[in-house]
Amino acid sequence: MEFTSKIKTIEWIENTSRMIDQTQLPHRFTTVDILTCDDMYSAIKNMIVRGAPAIGIAGAHGISLAAIEIAKITNDVNEFLKLLTQKAEYLKSARPTAVNLMWAIDKQMQIATSTLSTVSGIVNAVIKNGKKMELDDIEINKKMGNFGAQIVPKGATILTHCNAGALATVGYGTALGVVRSAYAKDPTIKVFANETRPRQQGARLTTFELTTDGIDTTLITDAMCSYFMKKKMIDLVIVGADRIASNGDTANKIGTYTVAICAKHHNIPFYIAAPLSTIDPNIKSGEEITIEERSCEEVTTINNEKICPEGVKIINPSFDITPNELISGIITEAGILRPNYQTSIAEALSIK
Amino acid sequence: MEFTSKIKTIEWIENTSRMIDQTQLPHRFTTVDILTCDDMYSAIKNMIVRGAPAIGIAGAHGISLAAIEIAKITNDVNEFLKLLTQKAEYLKSARPTAVNLMWAIDKQMQIATSTLSTVSGIVNAVIKNGKKMELDDIEINKKMGNFGAQIVPKGATILTHCNAGALATVGYGTALGVVRSAYAKDPTIKVFANETRPRQQGARLTTFELTTDGIDTTLITDAMCSYFMKKKMIDLVIVGADRIASNGDTANKIGTYTVAICAKHHNIPFYIAAPLSTIDPNIKSGEEITIEERSCEEVTTINNEKICPEGVKIINPSFDITPNELISGIITEAGILRPNYQTSIAEALSIK
Repeated sequence: MEFTSKIKTIEWIENTSRMIDQTQLPHRFTTVDILTCDDMYSAIKNMIVRGAPAIGIAGAHGISLAAIEIAKITNDVNEFLKLLTQKAEYLKSARPTAVNLMWAIDKQMQIATSTLSTVSGIVNAVIKNGKKMELDDIEINKKMGNFGAQIVPKGATILTHCNAGALATVGYGTALGVVRSAYAKDPTIKVFANETRPRQQGARLTTFELTTDGIDTTLITDAMCSYFMKKKMIDLVIVGADRIASNGDTANKIGTYTVAICAKHHNIPFYIAAPLSTIDPNIKSGEEITIEERSCEEVTTINNEKICPEGVKIINPSFDITPNELISGIITEAGILRPNYQTSIAEALSIK
Repeated sequence: MEFTSKIKTIEWIENTSRMIDQTQLPHRFTTVDILTCDDMYSAIKNMIVRGAPAIGIAGAHGISLAAIEIAKITNDVNEFLKLLTQKAEYLKSARPTAVNLMWAIDKQMQIATSTLSTVSGIVNAVIKNGKKMELDDIEINKKMGNFGAQIVPKGATILTHCNAGALATVGYGTALGVVRSAYAKDPTIKVFANETRPRQQGARLTTFELTTDGIDTTLITDAMCSYFMKKKMIDLVIVGADRIASNGDTANKIGTYTVAICAKHHNIPFYIAAPLSTIDPNIKSGEEITIEERSCEEVTTINNEKICPEGVKIINPSFDITPNELISGIITEAGILRPNYQTSIAEALSIK
């Protein structure tokens, strides 16, 4: 059975990338039209669009926008590719942790450099590929959802952290894609959403998209999760990923590691749901993943008001690494990968 | 060496209980004069005063206020004691989890019923005892601080959750009393304070009182704690308690159990700091402790603005239970209790 979400996070329409402004949710539902590569850089950096797969598509659209811009400056293919490569590097620097951004931009650059054509031919090719990647994302999510739904017991309550939903992808979700596919089969399933301080993607985004789709959702504060695990009110955990090392170590939103430790302590299955594009085969373990540090204000300020006095120090790592031994399985479009991840990831990537 | 905090949380002055209004911190430092027992009930319930030991003293002051009020109605000792007992039961119902409230009110009622005197004699006796309990609280905290400081390594970074500080007591603190005593010996120690959603006592109160006293303090969001443990940036955890069962199971602010699990996972010592009055010898284990559920708005609303959409369910348990096997020691005014807690707690209580 198929479930269609009402949410379309990012969409290429007539040479424009239209995206939901996620900084305004859940209070205001607005879309923003991104017309230039530089504006796409800002949109990614300032988290108007966020979530690893959605950032990937934003990066792909960003290359399409850059191509359109540069074609107005030069008709020389070499000059065009040189300028496009500069824009690609610039776009990649918007956020360091989600590998999907690098992956999607590299895909677009492969198309650009391998299209033996005129500048306008290359422009058309990257636009077409950017649109294709967007549509592929939903298909990949649905495949993951179908695999993942198999591990959701009847009537289960699923805990999730951050937002790995329609809003983190083009329109279906990774962790919440599994929720949607499970819900299509069994509407008695429920979700517990961790608030996910500091940016509150769980409170603002996950609750928004799940209640929009009619799925029973309970919001809890992050440190409550073990209380409900102990009470046997949570059957399994499913979260997304920003980058997965070749040994299965997974970077995801800060706080994920805490949830994974608590799940292990209570013998509750802990799953990652992520497309194969989130796997970075170039790194051996989580230790090699760069963790983005974001501004202090994300911690000290909520709704434009300070929550702490002056003189307090802040450290704000945006992601953490969950080591592979805490992960029960990685739900991908190629099936559910199981330990030993070194082997199962290599196999999945070779088939792809 | 002794360290004096600048903070006086609750103080009996001329037939009035003066307290810092903790709902206004850290933005506004104001005190409130409580003149009646009913106002004391509201002050406790609405968390103008909070923290188990401070709530205990508030309860003791509440009985003093009730005695003054009832003495204006009747001169008959039996009638007076009957009305005072009703007020005592009412006050106890303000918050269910912190046993110090029941303990302090019972102490006051023992004084009242054992004073073979006139109504005015009883009034004077409970006022005198209420003031004594207030002063004793600081002395008890300082004893605990001296014991606790022995387990703080030189230059250590201590993680704490919620506020078990001067603001949770009369003026020195339990967990933060240990911090103050350790700081007096070694000013290079540092504190990491968990924000402590939903009420943010860590962000609002712990950071306020520690920076006021010049102690190096870093604010982190709750689910970040395991990230810093993994990086070996936290040497030990010290938290307070709202009720300790006779087997050592400890009720404390929601989220404490999560911190304890993470500490165990990283082999980091996890200590409770609490006066013996926080131990409830009448209960065998944490399973018997009533967990207060507070209003949904504490989770959904920060700085008067909603953080989530309508239609989301909320559960808001205000405390959780950390089982004794996760606790390295309980720092009390009688020394540091170690496992087996069944034995060490019984011994400490028999000496007391």
